[in-house]
Amino acid sequence: MSGLWIVGLGPGGPEHRTAAAERAVREAEVVVGYGPYVDQCADLLGEQEVVRGKMGEELARAREAVERAKSARVALVSSGDAGVHGMAARTLAMAEGIDVTVVPGVTAALATAARLGAPLADDWATLSLSDLHLSLETVERRLTGLAMSGVALALYNPRSKTRTEPFDRALAILRQHRPGDTPVVVATDVARAGETLEHATLATLDPSTVTMRSLVLVAGETAMWSGEWLVALRDLAPITAATPAPVTPAAAPPTAPASPAHGGAA
Amino acid sequence: MSGLWIVGLGPGGPEHRTAAAERAVREAEVVVGYGPYVDQCADLLGEQEVVRGKMGEELARAREAVERAKSARVALVSSGDAGVHGMAARTLAMAEGIDVTVVPGVTAALATAARLGAPLADDWATLSLSDLHLSLETVERRLTGLAMSGVALALYNPRSKTRTEPFDRALAILRQHRPGDTPVVVATDVARAGETLEHATLATLDPSTVTMRSLVLVAGETAMWSGEWLVALRDLAPITAATPAPVTPAAAPPTAPASPAHGGAA
Repeated sequence: MSGLWIVGLGPGGPEHRTAAAERAVREAEVVVGYGPYVDQCADLLGEQEVVRGKMGEELARAREAVERAKSARVALVSSGDAGVHGMAARTLAMAEGIDVTVVPGVTAALATAARLGAPLADDWATLSLSDLHLSLETVERRLTGLAMSGVALALYNPRSKTRTEPFDRALAILRQHRPGDTPVVVATDVARAGETLEHATLATLDPSTVTMRSLVLVAGETAMWSGEWLVALRDLAPITAATPAPVTPAAAPPTAPASPAHGGAA
Repeated sequence: MSGLWIVGLGPGGPEHRTAAAERAVREAEVVVGYGPYVDQCADLLGEQEVVRGKMGEELARAREAVERAKSARVALVSSGDAGVHGMAARTLAMAEGIDVTVVPGVTAALATAARLGAPLADDWATLSLSDLHLSLETVERRLTGLAMSGVALALYNPRSKTRTEPFDRALAILRQHRPGDTPVVVATDVARAGETLEHATLATLDPSTVTMRSLVLVAGETAMWSGEWLVALRDLAPITAATPAPVTPAAAPPTAPASPAHGGAA
């Protein structure tokens, strides 16, 4: 049966790819995607026709996937989760009358968090710093609200060689609203060859370490280092009561009341 | 080799589970988890010793997993992503000296978004409304900042039969800061048997439809319905220029400048 599968392949290699994503690519007649994302699922390709797209041709690629899906099984592939700062929304907006399935994937924020420990275990937000499709004023308005809320932040599309202003302005906003000793990690090529994790704080962060392949994770107000792990503890009380001083407070301590050591669904 | 794998199993059945999660459970000598999460990976269980935990005993479970990991390969399993409102942080905070690997998973927000289209394609935040480990005042302070920022929201642990006040207070804050016609979806048991998706707006939402098995997704300021799909379009311009009027504006329109139809990494 014809139709379109919009597929998130996860952050890198096959290990963080879901069974549904693999099936959608294997059973497709046509696989469409930005070249490096097609390469990311090369191990699943056999008889499928492959349409490799170029950077900057997202709209044409979306249209081609929709057109081809009228008469064939098409998999439109993305890195991470196609629905997070990806191709899914613009494709769905032109997919009237097409049978579409969106296949979720492990987005970059989750992959990065897992490498660091659990910095997103308390509340968190994702924000793209790209100003290609949204005014920089809107990006700054959103970031100000998020920074004031004190939650952890995963900054997508933070900075390229030529697009440096949004990150500089974002850093200024963050430094205004969050403590200077807030942990920040610049995660580049997570779950891929050449992965690097640069540790810093809001005060010490050097923007030149941030590239277009980076995700910048800014810890939330309840985060702290526990040995090598960055963890966001919604409530310190049960942990510290049971195991004296295993953690080193980094940012502002949580405003946690004495509370029972139960509850909290995963 | 002994050690601890903290594993996110994804939202429900095996289709949204990653290869790394499956391998961690299959290769474990001991599998520890809240009963329903152990059931969720029953298809991966063979010779492993299984320790089924109860609701409300998260801390004891974390401690048991860490203790056992000193001499065995242990998989501590969670639904979704263990690092998002889950067990990972409190476990890591007591895991000094243990070899730990965190395996990310598809969190409930991503699974819900995929069922609806791409409502998280622009910026978004997750917030737990549980007040068991954090004061309600802090939850409200965070929600106010997030609501003002205009991003999409995924509300975890929104409401139980006895814990209804946080959701009522959250709804009041949202109605104060976001338009009444903002789309809201109450997603219950996503990717599981009995899945339901209740569509509403901030003005019409009936709190009694929200249970402890629900995730409440509040659309961001750039979201709209495109046929059956809820999509967040960071920039309307390229879509509308190419395919006239396929979408019906729902919330406030994006403040998008005329911009080229390129860029935006997935």
